[in-house]
Amino acid sequence: MDDLNLPEHWSCPVLTGLTPQTDGGRWPVRRFLGDEMTVQADLITEGHGCIAAELLVRHEHDERETIHRMALRHNDEYLASWTLDRLGTWYFRVRAWADPFTTWRDQFAHRVESDDPEIGSELLVGAGLLKRSAQVAGSKDKKALLRYAEAMETGSAEAALEDKAAALAQTNDPRASMIESETYAVLVDPVLARFAAWYEFFPRSAPYRNTGKKTSAPHATLDDAAELLPRIKELGFDIVYLPPVHPIGHTHRKGKDNTPEAGPGEPGSPWAIGSEAGGHKAVHPDLGGLDAFDRFVARARKLDLHVAIDIAFQTSPDHPWVREHPDWFLQRPDGSIRYAENPPKKYQDVYPLDFLSKDRETLWRELKSVFEFWIDRGVLAFRVDNPHTKPFAFWKWCIRELRKQRPELIFLSEAFSRPKTMYELAKLGFNNSYTYFTWRNTKDELESYCRELYDSEVGEFFRPNFWPNTPDILHEYLVQGGRPAHIVRLTLAATLSSAYGVYGPPFEHVYNEQHPDREEYASNEKYEVRSWDWNDPDSLQPFMRRLNRIRRENPALQHMRNLRFHDMDNPQLLAYSKTFGDNRIFVVVNLDPHHEQRGWLSLAPGDLGLPEDRRWDMHDLLGSRHASWKGSTHYIRLNPQKTPVRIFRAG
Amino acid sequence: MDDLNLPEHWSCPVLTGLTPQTDGGRWPVRRFLGDEMTVQADLITEGHGCIAAELLVRHEHDERETIHRMALRHNDEYLASWTLDRLGTWYFRVRAWADPFTTWRDQFAHRVESDDPEIGSELLVGAGLLKRSAQVAGSKDKKALLRYAEAMETGSAEAALEDKAAALAQTNDPRASMIESETYAVLVDPVLARFAAWYEFFPRSAPYRNTGKKTSAPHATLDDAAELLPRIKELGFDIVYLPPVHPIGHTHRKGKDNTPEAGPGEPGSPWAIGSEAGGHKAVHPDLGGLDAFDRFVARARKLDLHVAIDIAFQTSPDHPWVREHPDWFLQRPDGSIRYAENPPKKYQDVYPLDFLSKDRETLWRELKSVFEFWIDRGVLAFRVDNPHTKPFAFWKWCIRELRKQRPELIFLSEAFSRPKTMYELAKLGFNNSYTYFTWRNTKDELESYCRELYDSEVGEFFRPNFWPNTPDILHEYLVQGGRPAHIVRLTLAATLSSAYGVYGPPFEHVYNEQHPDREEYASNEKYEVRSWDWNDPDSLQPFMRRLNRIRRENPALQHMRNLRFHDMDNPQLLAYSKTFGDNRIFVVVNLDPHHEQRGWLSLAPGDLGLPEDRRWDMHDLLGSRHASWKGSTHYIRLNPQKTPVRIFRAG
Repeated sequence: MDDLNLPEHWSCPVLTGLTPQTDGGRWPVRRFLGDEMTVQADLITEGHGCIAAELLVRHEHDERETIHRMALRHNDEYLASWTLDRLGTWYFRVRAWADPFTTWRDQFAHRVESDDPEIGSELLVGAGLLKRSAQVAGSKDKKALLRYAEAMETGSAEAALEDKAAALAQTNDPRASMIESETYAVLVDPVLARFAAWYEFFPRSAPYRNTGKKTSAPHATLDDAAELLPRIKELGFDIVYLPPVHPIGHTHRKGKDNTPEAGPGEPGSPWAIGSEAGGHKAVHPDLGGLDAFDRFVARARKLDLHVAIDIAFQTSPDHPWVREHPDWFLQRPDGSIRYAENPPKKYQDVYPLDFLSKDRETLWRELKSVFEFWIDRGVLAFRVDNPHTKPFAFWKWCIRELRKQRPELIFLSEAFSRPKTMYELAKLGFNNSYTYFTWRNTKDELESYCRELYDSEVGEFFRPNFWPNTPDILHEYLVQGGRPAHIVRLTLAATLSSAYGVYGPPFEHVYNEQHPDREEYASNEKYEVRSWDWNDPDSLQPFMRRLNRIRRENPALQHMRNLRFHDMDNPQLLAYSKTFGDNRIFVVVNLDPHHEQRGWLSLAPGDLGLPEDRRWDMHDLLGSRHASWKGSTHYIRLNPQKTPVRIFRAG
Repeated sequence: MDDLNLPEHWSCPVLTGLTPQTDGGRWPVRRFLGDEMTVQADLITEGHGCIAAELLVRHEHDERETIHRMALRHNDEYLASWTLDRLGTWYFRVRAWADPFTTWRDQFAHRVESDDPEIGSELLVGAGLLKRSAQVAGSKDKKALLRYAEAMETGSAEAALEDKAAALAQTNDPRASMIESETYAVLVDPVLARFAAWYEFFPRSAPYRNTGKKTSAPHATLDDAAELLPRIKELGFDIVYLPPVHPIGHTHRKGKDNTPEAGPGEPGSPWAIGSEAGGHKAVHPDLGGLDAFDRFVARARKLDLHVAIDIAFQTSPDHPWVREHPDWFLQRPDGSIRYAENPPKKYQDVYPLDFLSKDRETLWRELKSVFEFWIDRGVLAFRVDNPHTKPFAFWKWCIRELRKQRPELIFLSEAFSRPKTMYELAKLGFNNSYTYFTWRNTKDELESYCRELYDSEVGEFFRPNFWPNTPDILHEYLVQGGRPAHIVRLTLAATLSSAYGVYGPPFEHVYNEQHPDREEYASNEKYEVRSWDWNDPDSLQPFMRRLNRIRRENPALQHMRNLRFHDMDNPQLLAYSKTFGDNRIFVVVNLDPHHEQRGWLSLAPGDLGLPEDRRWDMHDLLGSRHASWKGSTHYIRLNPQKTPVRIFRAG
């Protein structure tokens, strides 16, 4: 027999699409505090029937839903919005029902226009629909509905066309035709996850002051490092990010330039965490211990700077966990603990943790408590080392639980992994991510990568943080291109993404000597204490300061998905704009650090909210060569020695 | 307390995407008989773990699933394919599990290359993984696995690297880490839903032969109409589509040009179905009744032509249902039956059915039986009139049930409704759809519409059928452009879509006189019997014949989603190609029916499988001006009076 599943005596709307959503609702979409959240439901019904639709919204800490009436825009798309004025998770769903009175009224209005002889009998039909609503209405609405019905029954076409009547009929519809969507979630992150400039440096390389403490000089303490904070603040950065500050192991400690054994006095890599002085909850004695750390955070907070630390869940062979919890590590057949390797590469100074060990519950809770320990000391931003080599389930649980207490936390994923893995980590909870930006240097590469990040569904959950360099990566482009290349890459990072960071000291001094075998710095600071001339008059500091000020003064640069590229007939010239409200920023970059490049920029002024038929001002934000533009084509000439980039504010 | 949901002692792969699917699996995707179906699963796991994946496939009439191993292409995408060699619904799902032996072996191979001193102890680890598989393997595999394990334990690196060992380990993995996707469906339609040329004509206008029967002359019978079938076949059409052939009502019968009342002898609109002579299961006596219909179908079948009829679920006031089932219709307050109207338009000769009436079950079953009645008489293709004004639930049920018995049926949806409604009807079961093609006449319009239909997710379920005209639509372009416009539109319909149709008689005679008030033919055949000169020497018949032969001889024109537009520097010239295997068809069209147009066509020969560095042949399929092309730019000149379009076969 066939299975005829008869609908009831009414026809329900069909929901053919609801946006935004991520993976069909498997993950929340992501927004930032203060954003306007717009939900669109595509609703259809047979024939010419009208539909009433509502968006129901609830913050995770609220009991009750707020109802927003959805308005039909066009092409069967119904929309409603609300403001995400609290951090954390919000839930939303849509419901819709057939609206027979409005359907009737639309036809009735045509009848009135065309003096249809049926108007009298049609009024009886409409009155019947109002009475249908009156049956389920509260006493006040009921009375009003019956009053309209009566007026219509006695021939009043005016009553039938009053908006009030339609609104009453719609609200009090018996809703037998109502359909409801699934419930979807939107996770609201702090604005700092969207708009922030990060500055990374190794505190042990700060200017060293002999304070009488016994440290292996030249090795600065966090108190020394704190002396740099006013300068970093003054350069316009928001977050100071410190590589691991924990005690460093002795066993198989790496020497200068990652040589297999450290010589006497060599400090080792901060990522080889743990010694007899403690593990992930301790601070290296040479950095001044926990007290110095607390003073560093307090100093930063006074300057309105955030401190980010590095979370690297691995240990040196000397970490207390190795003794206390040998079952948290992988063993080799001979019973020894397995060190990290990616054959043929071996990292004898690092033990990975076995996240799936028998005792994993204790391990996972201990790892979560590492975050909690630092959160209690005032750290709200974490750069997480290699999260893709740990179970997704761990991060999902750990970040969700931490965020329950502190929804303002920042988790920056350092997963230089394959794209789908990077995206999965963002979906499950990371709210900032390193990207491939460092390796995207040509115009095509930059445009297509930004389109992938912002214009595809990736933009619903992934928040890029662009870095031109890191202690692990010094790209050939910076090596070959020198100072102009540094200016170009910093500008791109700071304007293509509203969240960016820089490994400061070598970058600002245009130090770009590359290791002979690897895409990283020679005399890498990971393995040795470096001393930088913090007051070098030729440094990029003035440029950095200006760039960060431009970001702060222009809301357009504080958002991510508002990026738009413009046609430029020279493949070495990249042109783009960002708009927010009436703030319009144009950036033009000469990607060739060696030669002057010229070309014609094409843009459609009307699309950008600029006048089609008269001039507008272009304020030169990096210099003082203000201009006045008109129309859609503009000549650009950039000399990398003088002006590798230009940033304009339009209007 | 936090809810730590610990994973087991292994890590499961994560499925981040499965394609193809429609609306997250709410509807089946659609394919055609003989298609290769490729399923892609995006699978990731933490770190460097390898994954094994399988696609499980089952036809609806099979009990057991067939297993296809999925191969990793790149970017974490796993693929497998099978051939859809049966009509109806197939089900598929994916499962995947961590493959620790292959993970180990990849690392081990690096160790062997680099002469790692750990090789010996690593072999023990690998042997342990084989033994793990052996525990769950059948006796034959178990023996082989243990043999490999033993060889490895005694130091054989060669054994570890044998592909056989990895395959055995993978297949016999205990699969504790296995994940399974949902089950998805793919609905396989007959090739005729993809590749067919439809010819519509009014049988009553066929050349009239006085056979002695009493008909209201001039009114041909279906026996007369059958005499046209050899000609239609010879023109290369596949499906003959007849407007409703049922008895026509008398009450409020429309006259010539849709005037409110027919004069004596006027035949009425075939869509005003039903009279004392019967309803949806009867044939108009003037057409010769059911027997003549049966003879018509038999004659068509002999010619290998399919007959499509019109299913219009509405009645004239004289339909037997009105008497027998007044409760199937909507009533007005005065108790009379409500006729169709779309205020201010009124259709007094047509009663809509109330699909949601109290007695709806009887009604729905009766309507389904209308299809069954005609299917039993040999009709396998149905053009369904205005399906969007009937409940989606009705079509979903009706088409599904009919298709259970006859999966080869064709349902052409005539829903000139809003896009989302048209798409919903396709999702729920229609396997051919009228489109907006008729109103897409400029280059931009045609390109963007085809991209929407083929290149977006719409292409997974919607099968366009392009019509340059219908009895309801005569577009201004045909009115203004005359013969060249007719050639252009027919070529576009027949080559942009592999399924197309034409309301033949006026089109082939370039009859394009428009009604003064409406976008339709003057002296519309819907309301009167027309007589056409079927042997007009100036007709488009030779062109139609040639075009249909080109379609039949070139597989590239028999597919839908293989369309690709090419750059052409003149907005009046449209250029595109279709490729299937090594069959490559190029079409260039002058959209301007009044003036010669010239321009440069740009294409990338390599992308089209053509040589980059030498000439290839371009066979002129409509004429004999064969050419030989080389490189990426080609000059095109089209004179609408002589050659409004050109079709080439390349290579």
